[in-house]
Amino acid sequence: MRILVIGATGTIGSAVVKALAGSHDIVAVAHTKGDRRVDLASPDSITRLYQAAGRCDAVVSAAGSARFAGLADLTEDDYLFGLKNKLMGQVNLIRIGQAFLNDGGSFTVTSGVLSQEPMRGSCSISMVNAALEGFVRAAALELPRGLRVNVVSPPWVTETLLARGMDPSIGLPADIVARAYVWSVEGSATGQTIDPRTLPR
Amino acid sequence: MRILVIGATGTIGSAVVKALAGSHDIVAVAHTKGDRRVDLASPDSITRLYQAAGRCDAVVSAAGSARFAGLADLTEDDYLFGLKNKLMGQVNLIRIGQAFLNDGGSFTVTSGVLSQEPMRGSCSISMVNAALEGFVRAAALELPRGLRVNVVSPPWVTETLLARGMDPSIGLPADIVARAYVWSVEGSATGQTIDPRTLPR
Repeated sequence: MRILVIGATGTIGSAVVKALAGSHDIVAVAHTKGDRRVDLASPDSITRLYQAAGRCDAVVSAAGSARFAGLADLTEDDYLFGLKNKLMGQVNLIRIGQAFLNDGGSFTVTSGVLSQEPMRGSCSISMVNAALEGFVRAAALELPRGLRVNVVSPPWVTETLLARGMDPSIGLPADIVARAYVWSVEGSATGQTIDPRTLPR
Repeated sequence: MRILVIGATGTIGSAVVKALAGSHDIVAVAHTKGDRRVDLASPDSITRLYQAAGRCDAVVSAAGSARFAGLADLTEDDYLFGLKNKLMGQVNLIRIGQAFLNDGGSFTVTSGVLSQEPMRGSCSISMVNAALEGFVRAAALELPRGLRVNVVSPPWVTETLLARGMDPSIGLPADIVARAYVWSVEGSATGQTIDPRTLPR
């Protein structure tokens, strides 16, 4: 398969590229590095990416930002930032990308377990993650030509916890998280929220 | 309790007013009718509402719009409409309203079962409803002074189905749905997504 991986230089994205590269043709896309660039917050940038990249069989996104801050500190603009970037950015990868995917192709986007397991400071991120999961459940009912869509909802990644000086024991290594993306791309599921903790290792 | 009911003239809102009015002091708020007016899409309008209404013990919202349309037809603006109105409108009722609620007060906002049970045409609404549920789970962890927040996720309401000429047998009557709001306001739950179908009748 020819697979566009967006966020290919991130902790999860680079593990996904590594997991897929053995059996697929990967186009690595990132905000500031990679084979191709995209600004997720810009629908025009997403359209240009698809036009330049040409047809593909799968799109994987491990990209998108939202603000982590206390309920008392998050402003209207902070919420809108996450809605336009991590949420609508990934929604637009699907909405705009439909036309560029080969029959039977798939989208796999990224939320995070804060959608269901919030913590202090996660109001905006929990909102964005849950929104994306709700969108994916609904969009799967309508995608044409056998196209599929799933969302991977990763827990904290061990490498991220280590980089931040946090306790790594609650995390899952990026190469294990990456298997959820491979499962989505190579399998037949659609409309699913995939928790990498529940896939068989 | 002194309770602000936003969307007080709608099918669910008017049933909520009826259910609460016997034992509480209700301030009915709506977009174009009611004791007070508010434009949910405008944070300034929400601030003015709270300043004018004065302190209260509970805020109930059965208000907010989002677009119902096919995945192929929904535009970026259609999604942003729902995000700014039904989602951020209700988020802002909580975010801005915190300061105007008495200690131990509560917010009860409204999503809908399309968050978990999508149908064709519900991409934007499923996204908005799931987002609000994710926000409420997270916000409950941070609200100060014993404030609570819950979201009622109603199924189709019988009266709405009848008004649209649809099969009413899959619906729940508005007076039954209203009990979920009373349960949230008068109870002690917080952070919960309340499905009126699962409350004891």
